[in-house]
Formats: sequence, structure tokens, C-alpha cells
Amino acid sequence: MKLLVAVVLLCFKNIYAYNYTVKYIDVPVDHFSFTTNATFKLKYLINDSFWIDDGPIFFYTGNEGIIENFAENTGFMFDKAPMFNALLVFAEHRYYGESLPFGNLSFSTPAHLGYLTANQALADYVYLINYLQTEHSRSAYLNKVPVVAFGGSYGGMLASWLRMKYPASVIGAIASSAPIWQFQGLTPCENFNRIVTDVYKTALEEDCSDPLQKSWKIIRNLTSTDAGKSWLSTEWKLCTPLKTAADVNTLVNWFSEILINIVMVNYPYPTSFLAPLPANPVRSFCNKLTGVEVTDDKTLLTSIGAALQIYTNYTETTTCNNINQTAAALGEAAWDFQACTEMIMPMCSDDNDMFENYAWDFNDYATNCNKKWNVRQTLAELPVLEFGGKDIGAASNIVFSNGLLDPWSSGGVLSNVSSTVSAVIIPEGAHHLDLRGENPADPKSVTEAREFHVSNIRAWISEFYNSRDTNYFKKSVLYEKIKYTHASV
Amino acid sequence: MKLLVAVVLLCFKNIYAYNYTVKYIDVPVDHFSFTTNATFKLKYLINDSFWIDDGPIFFYTGNEGIIENFAENTGFMFDKAPMFNALLVFAEHRYYGESLPFGNLSFSTPAHLGYLTANQALADYVYLINYLQTEHSRSAYLNKVPVVAFGGSYGGMLASWLRMKYPASVIGAIASSAPIWQFQGLTPCENFNRIVTDVYKTALEEDCSDPLQKSWKIIRNLTSTDAGKSWLSTEWKLCTPLKTAADVNTLVNWFSEILINIVMVNYPYPTSFLAPLPANPVRSFCNKLTGVEVTDDKTLLTSIGAALQIYTNYTETTTCNNINQTAAALGEAAWDFQACTEMIMPMCSDDNDMFENYAWDFNDYATNCNKKWNVRQTLAELPVLEFGGKDIGAASNIVFSNGLLDPWSSGGVLSNVSSTVSAVIIPEGAHHLDLRGENPADPKSVTEAREFHVSNIRAWISEFYNSRDTNYFKKSVLYEKIKYTHASV
Repeated sequence: MKLLVAVVLLCFKNIYAYNYTVKYIDVPVDHFSFTTNATFKLKYLINDSFWIDDGPIFFYTGNEGIIENFAENTGFMFDKAPMFNALLVFAEHRYYGESLPFGNLSFSTPAHLGYLTANQALADYVYLINYLQTEHSRSAYLNKVPVVAFGGSYGGMLASWLRMKYPASVIGAIASSAPIWQFQGLTPCENFNRIVTDVYKTALEEDCSDPLQKSWKIIRNLTSTDAGKSWLSTEWKLCTPLKTAADVNTLVNWFSEILINIVMVNYPYPTSFLAPLPANPVRSFCNKLTGVEVTDDKTLLTSIGAALQIYTNYTETTTCNNINQTAAALGEAAWDFQACTEMIMPMCSDDNDMFENYAWDFNDYATNCNKKWNVRQTLAELPVLEFGGKDIGAASNIVFSNGLLDPWSSGGVLSNVSSTVSAVIIPEGAHHLDLRGENPADPKSVTEAREFHVSNIRAWISEFYNSRDTNYFKKSVLYEKIKYTHASV
Repeated sequence: MKLLVAVVLLCFKNIYAYNYTVKYIDVPVDHFSFTTNATFKLKYLINDSFWIDDGPIFFYTGNEGIIENFAENTGFMFDKAPMFNALLVFAEHRYYGESLPFGNLSFSTPAHLGYLTANQALADYVYLINYLQTEHSRSAYLNKVPVVAFGGSYGGMLASWLRMKYPASVIGAIASSAPIWQFQGLTPCENFNRIVTDVYKTALEEDCSDPLQKSWKIIRNLTSTDAGKSWLSTEWKLCTPLKTAADVNTLVNWFSEILINIVMVNYPYPTSFLAPLPANPVRSFCNKLTGVEVTDDKTLLTSIGAALQIYTNYTETTTCNNINQTAAALGEAAWDFQACTEMIMPMCSDDNDMFENYAWDFNDYATNCNKKWNVRQTLAELPVLEFGGKDIGAASNIVFSNGLLDPWSSGGVLSNVSSTVSAVIIPEGAHHLDLRGENPADPKSVTEAREFHVSNIRAWISEFYNSRDTNYFKKSVLYEKIKYTHASV
């Protein structure tokens, strides 16, 4: 595990050189029962170089991967920290990176892995925030600094839920590309794949989704023979040649996931989030398919194989493709458990998208999950009960931002919920582009979204100090200082 | 257990004859992990005799006792159900009454008892509400009826937290005598006992707290000898004579608790909530102490012994006093576990109140709890982290009502938090008097509090229907019907 972490960090270390110190805090394994008093070390990253005068804490609610990777790809927090004199904290999600409640045994049985839930992670963050607020308060006259939550994707869902469930812990949340409505009964399961398809359709003048849509049958036909399996294994540089029908299914999933991942990180400049990639990777991918003669099956697959290298081998250092992995920095096994038990996001495909057709059948899904994890979920709408589904009108101080190039916008909050729960649309944005650091290639829409975030954070901080006890000694002095700090931006 | 339940029901069955059907629903033992898939039967009471036209569900969030006792003492819900065409539901709290997750083993070890937490109980209620909303929707054009939460005391805390944590499940909460601020760092630990003392001080013209304050030393002196222990055991009709110093401590606790309980249920008419009692029981109690010569120790204790019978033997059927029990209908063991682990409410006594002095020392408390339950709590402020402490400004649609004769008002919300989180003061009210049924002896302040509750519930229901999708078919028709129903009240 340690080695993998080191390699990943090496890969993802980028030119911005975001700095932080790695720390750990002991947190309870189970926040919601007294059946065990076990604790474990939760990792977090901290940077206090911008932090002066009891500035706020900018708190990233870590999601499904090693936390360093999210810190390295959330430059927005670093960019805006000086403006707010903010303390930066990035908390790792339990069961990812180094934050393993039972070490090597963490994934061994449901008794070990069962504490991997969104609610337990939220409680970890509340626990850590309380510790930070207690430890990091330089002046005696303020016993608590305000905390703003930030998160992208599942991390954005957690940021918004943290504000909904624990509004005393965070004064507001910037929830970027957070598909809190990608659950049973809230969003049609086909929407996600239609957005992916649209991005491939419109990336170039020539419709690039068309050859992809045709490829599935070709793959299935070709791999029905051993010779075909062997040919495709060589042509697509697989580390392990295809042997069985199950291997072919794995390949199809891997191929589908890469097509989706490229769209998610379809940023306007080179990045290294899910994998090292060029600017506008969908366009680069589609360029490799331009003018392919679709009547020749092998030529099509050869072209797709070459196009896939945009994702799998942009650094030209990959010797072969491991079809069991699509994003090294994400904890794919742990996320699979979460998706099987709590974060159940119905997905399906039909003739209106470019993927191989598949239906959403919760019972099949739950049965398959039970085989893998020995846990059977019977309540598809569990996350709706836990987090309210579309009834979030009682929430406050949340910004939901979504890029329209991002398939996860299918489950996002795309219009304002109330005067304090706002939606921001970034037409040219992929997956949480707004949380990335500023870049000359940024479209205007993402710059405007970031300005909207800043104005909301300012308002939340003002509200926090205004609502304090007006008799509090020196409050007005501090408040003036903060206003001055903001005015100087 | 069954026998106890039957006896209790017999005792508490009162003249109002509130009707309900007993039902059960299977709920997960652990809502917050996937380490177990065990379920158990949660009991609830239901009355649909007032329920017409998709009226709301009035949902009582059961607290620390058999649910029938709360239903019998929450006449307010029955009184107002016809006005709202409401379905009445009273849910039993896990580990109380019949709702035992592991049957006879429920209290055996932390592995069994550890699932007794407020958050697990709230999740039970969300689960049950979802079931009720799914099952109890008569018309096809409305898929979800609004739910209003009601609760008194700890049940009131749960009602308010249910709205704070799960606003999609309940549109609002009537939280009566809910001491949500009786936690570490929020309320001075001596406040509670000072209010108790004030009630005894002012019940009659003569200060009744004075002889009580003097009694502790007398008891301690007298029981320092075997003869004294024997005399007091006989005089106070104890079932088991005092033998040890520990027995004397138990007696002192029992006596203190009864003094507190009498204040809590100091209602202006005879009731049978914690015990069968006359109207204004504090006055009845103090009457027995009027004119007692406090220089004669034994006469004082004899008078107090007679006065205690107001609480222990109002029915004149009690043959002896069991000092290990003060309120038969409450699950005192289960509550002790809760108070030891999560609902940690600091209490202390000093010379400004009538009780024997004792300090609040969390470490001592936790050590003692660990001895009893084999669970050590290290975080006194746990409930503050879980439920936000005094920072509840983000909440909405809650009414906190408190009687000023109620010592639990020490930890209550006594002033408005916002335009949608209101406080109601009932100067002449004891513990959740407003949730009781109407009575000719009611003070005007409790009648007004109930009117305030009704106006809030009306507003919440209107808001619920207004915020629905305006395009919803037939919505306007239903809404007109509801308005008409309300107008006719």
C-alpha cells in the first residue's frame, strides 16, 4: 500500500507544488453505537501558511481516494486562502489512502468493512473539526473559528451533507459536481450515459460517439473466438490476455469506464487527476478516430486502441493495460463496497446512448453485491431516507456547482433551491473544474463560478460573526478587521 | 417483562380512554454500519379514526419508557387530530417497552446494548415514517403525506432533532419541555436543582424547601447507626431494610428523585404519569410538612415519610417502598445507560438549593458508568457535537415549549431562535403540561401555548403544500380542501 501511495504521489505532483503537512487524529471506528471503543488514525493534510488573525478553516471533505490526490487537484482552496487568511485542511475519507480502521484487515469481512459509510465519514469530519477549532484558536476572545466545507464529486456530496446534518460544525459548503440526486427514484438511470454520449457527439465536427456505439457488437463478435480474444489482447496491449467470457465483460467495463473518465476530466489544459492527460482529452481521443472506416471491424478496434492510449499512456511509460483498474489514485474496491451498500446510484444504458445496452435491476445488483461483499442491501432508497432526496428546502448556505460537460451533472442540483441554497452552472466545465486552481485556459464561466463561491463564503463568514452574541467582548473589533481584510482583496 | 407491561398499563389507563392499535415494524438494529443485518420489531401505536383525505401524520417520537404511557399522557395529539384529519402514531423508543433489539439479551453486554443511542432511535423513526407514508396514502395523486413530530422531555429532544437532522421526513416539530441544552458547557449544572428548590419554596406560604434542605444531614447522622437505619426503614416503609452505607446512598437518591419527580408532574389536576398523584402534588406534599418542629430530627423524618406517600402511595395500595425504583413506567436501566454514554447531563448541587451537596465531576461520572455498563465515555460534549449545542440557527419549523415550574426548563430553549424556531413559555406549567389533554383546571398560559402549537402546525402544512411542485395535478384541489377544513375549526 505504501509503495502505491508513493508512486501515485510522484505521478500527481504537479507544477503548482501545493504544500501541506501530513497529520493524523484518532477517531472512533463507530460513531453511532457503543458496541466498540476501537479508534483508528484518520489522516489529514494541513497548511497554515495563509492563516492569520483567526481566519476561517477551509475544510475539504475527502472522498474516495488518497487525500493527497484531492489536495493536489483542489487549487481553488489554495488560491483563495490568502484572501480569507484561511487555514487549509484536507481530511481523508475512512477506508481510503492510509485511513484504514483495521489496517490490512480493513477489507476482510463485513465486521471490519461495515463501518465504511457516508454518515461515519461525516462524523469523522465533525470530530476533526471540533479538534481543529479547539486547538487552532490563537486568541482567547474567540473560542471557535468558522469552518467552510469544500468538496468535489462524492466529496461535494459529503460537503453538502455535512452542512445539512451538522450546521453547527460548518457555516456553509461549496459542493462541486455533487450528484446528491443520483439515487433511486430521483433521476432517470439513463441520463448519465446520455450526457457522456453528447460530449463525444459534439467534441469535433464528426460525431465521435458513432464508432464507439458500434464498437461493442464488434468486440463481442470478435472475442467470441480464441483467435479474436488473442488479437484484441495484443492490439489493446492488455497485461493479461483475455481468456474467458468474464474477462471480456471486464474489458467492456474497463473500456466503458475509461470513456466516462475521459469525459469527467475533460479539462481545457493538461492534468493528472484520474490519469495524466492532455488538454481537452475527449477531443484528442476523438481525433484518433476521425475518418475510421467502420465497415472494417479490426481497423475500428485498432483505432480505438490507439485512442485509448490518450488515457492509459499519455506519459508513454505504460507497458501494458491492466483492465482491472481505471484510476489508480481512487480506492476502487472501497468505493465498490460503498456503491453496493449505501451510495447506490442506478445507471442504465439504451439505444439513445453510445454504450452497450444494460438495464437497471436493483435485485440483480444487490445479488451481485452480496456475492462480492457478503452484504445484501434491500433498501435501494436508503440514501434518500438518510439525506432527504429532493426535499432539501430546509438546508441553507450551500452552493451546488455543476459543469454541463460533466455526466455527473445528471444527478446534480441544477437550479436554486432557496435564497441560501444556490446552483451554479458552468456550461464549459467538466467534473469539478471550479475546484481546480486558476489556469489561463479557464473558460469565463468557471472564473465566474469561483467568484460566486467567494462571494458566498464572504457572506457566510459575515453572517457567522453577526449572529454571535452581540455582547461578546472585542467581537466588533475582530469583525472590523475581517471586513477590512476582505475589502483589501 | 410482559407482566410488568400489563400492570403498568392497568395503572395508567385513565378516564380519557385514548384508543390505538398496537403494531410492529422490522427495523435494522444498526442503521449506521453494515457490520450486521439484524433487525428487530419496533412497536408503534396507531389510531386512524380521525384520519381522512390524506391528512397529516401526527408522529410522537417515543422516549425512555413503554410507549403506551406516553400515548396516554399526550392527549393534545388526540384533542387536535380531528381538526387536522390527522393519523396518530406513537413510536416506541428502542430498548424500552417491548422494543428490545435482542429480547432478553438486550441488556447483557455492550455488544447488545451499544445500539441504544438517540441517533439510532431517530433513524428508526425515519424508517417508520417512510413506511407509513408509503402505506398510508389513500389517493394516487399524493405520494406523501406531511408528518408533524411531537415529543415531551427526551421525546421532545428527539422530535426537535428529527426535524434538524431529517427535515425531509418531518415538516415541523412540537418539542415540549425538551432540555436540548442540558449538556456539557451549555448550562450550569446547578440550575436544575435551583428550580426544584424554588418550586418547593413557593408552593405554600411557608418555605417547604427549608425542612427538606435540613433533612439530608439528619438522615446521614441517623443512619450512621444500625438502630437508626432500622428505625428509618420502618418509618419510611422500605421493602428491604437499610443495611449498608451503599443502601443509605440509594435511599438518598430515591428520596431526591421523588422530590424532583413530584415537581416534574406538578399538574393542576390528578394524573398518573410517573405515579398516581393528586392535583398540585407539591402543595399536597408541603402541606404534610407544615408546622413541623425541625429541632426534633425524628419528627421531621416521620413527617417527610408521610409526605412521600403522596407520591408512593396515593392509591393506598402500596405495601412497601422499593428504593430502587421511582417511576415504574420508565425504563430506568436503559436510561441510565443512555445517560452514561450519550445523554450526559451534568447535574450538581450546592448551598443555594435544598439538596445534599454534590459536585459534577465528569471523570468520576464516567468511571462509575464504566463500572456499571463496561463502556467508558471520554467525550462529555458528544451530544453537542452530534446535535449542535446552542448553534441551532440553521434549524426551522420547531416550537420549543417550557413550563417555568419544570426543572428541565433549565436546559430548554427559552427564547426565539429565529422566525421559524420559536420558544413558548408556560409560567404555570410543569413538565410538558401542554402535551396533555385539555382539562378544566388548565391555566390560561397552557391553553395559549396549545393554540400557538396549532397555528404553527397549520403554517407548516400550508408551507408543505405550497412548496410542492405547482404543476402537480389536482394539488390545488386538495389544498383548497385542506384550507376549508382548517377554516372550519
